[in-house]
Amino acid sequence: MTTNKILTAIEIHDLLLNNFKIKQQTGKIKITLGGISAEYKGKDAIGDLLQEWLSEWLSYNKIYFRQPTNTQEFPDFLLTASANSGFLELKTFNANASPAFDIANFDSYCTSLLNIPERIDADYLILSYKMVNSALSIDNIWLKKVWEITSPSGQNPLKMQVKRNQIYNIRPCTWYSNKLKFQPFANKIDFLNAISNTLDSYPQCNSYKNNWLHNVKSKYFYNTGIIL
Amino acid sequence: MTTNKILTAIEIHDLLLNNFKIKQQTGKIKITLGGISAEYKGKDAIGDLLQEWLSEWLSYNKIYFRQPTNTQEFPDFLLTASANSGFLELKTFNANASPAFDIANFDSYCTSLLNIPERIDADYLILSYKMVNSALSIDNIWLKKVWEITSPSGQNPLKMQVKRNQIYNIRPCTWYSNKLKFQPFANKIDFLNAISNTLDSYPQCNSYKNNWLHNVKSKYFYNTGIIL
Repeated sequence: MTTNKILTAIEIHDLLLNNFKIKQQTGKIKITLGGISAEYKGKDAIGDLLQEWLSEWLSYNKIYFRQPTNTQEFPDFLLTASANSGFLELKTFNANASPAFDIANFDSYCTSLLNIPERIDADYLILSYKMVNSALSIDNIWLKKVWEITSPSGQNPLKMQVKRNQIYNIRPCTWYSNKLKFQPFANKIDFLNAISNTLDSYPQCNSYKNNWLHNVKSKYFYNTGIIL
Repeated sequence: MTTNKILTAIEIHDLLLNNFKIKQQTGKIKITLGGISAEYKGKDAIGDLLQEWLSEWLSYNKIYFRQPTNTQEFPDFLLTASANSGFLELKTFNANASPAFDIANFDSYCTSLLNIPERIDADYLILSYKMVNSALSIDNIWLKKVWEITSPSGQNPLKMQVKRNQIYNIRPCTWYSNKLKFQPFANKIDFLNAISNTLDSYPQCNSYKNNWLHNVKSKYFYNTGIIL
């Protein structure tokens, strides 16, 4: 691994788009068991498989990366040896529908920003895919910050998945649409304010809501020397 | 499709176990995109891929089956041309853990029994798998009825996934364990009674709970001529 190149998320996005020409590539997902093979025609498994594929693509291209031991943990990929930077999340969605992935579990996201506020700067590599019969193709690719793919929604400061007054996940807006009722946030502070303005309305946030925004900003300054 | 054999779930289970020797077979899941291939090492996608594989195995063996147009619907496979019999569900779980699949969404299951009470007789083909690095193998295979893989749990008449007093899914017990605190139900009536005894405790059941058990039994008799 020592000879692998350290690249930024921007450089990786650029290589995938312009060098590898990912939007012109096709592929497939195949399961073999006991000599019988089947090509996958569904959609639910694609995100998980594309993450495995990206690992392989990074290795093949001799690009440095690490992954958390627990694959459920944030982030999907670490692009440096640092524990506080180079966070890369991979998100995928069906190009024939609106983005429906979970950006993060709300409570986990809020509490993790208290410890590692640099998570706010994580990069999101987003692939929209098409699966026609069993032919997989990549329709589009984006590199975004969290505040560029989130927005207010109706009465809520932030678009979220809420059931019975319980927040589950932070959900994306359709950031590429030119018919949006609510535009994505202009910057990370607007996004953090939206979270902060959400905390008082949900009892589930009581354990961490006191001075949440102040604490995130302080810790960010402490860790990076930069005022949010 | 007209020349394909009509087999029962029992015959299919027997072929997989004794003829195909599925417990001795190994396999893998592979994604290819733009000439780069990766072998899947995770677990989340395995159930979905094994369902695709079973379709192919049935076709290869010239066994008749149909699937609902909407793949989210019950059942995974229909083994006859009838709309009221030959229901086969495929369930999978990691052999190194307890069964963690959802048997069915609770509300959907209860309301569907009012229309198609024959669903109670559906067969569950269950595969436990191992994924070691990227080598997939089948550790065990069972063919079960729903009451053979469900049980009471603690104070509850039925083991379920419940969050904040809202029932989400019916969950399996570890039916093959010899250290079970709660045994699986002895028969379908005990299972139906367990559902019936659950309905009064959850407001979400109000729209269908009145005479639920009676209505399921009546409709079953009406459809099949058999007294439950």
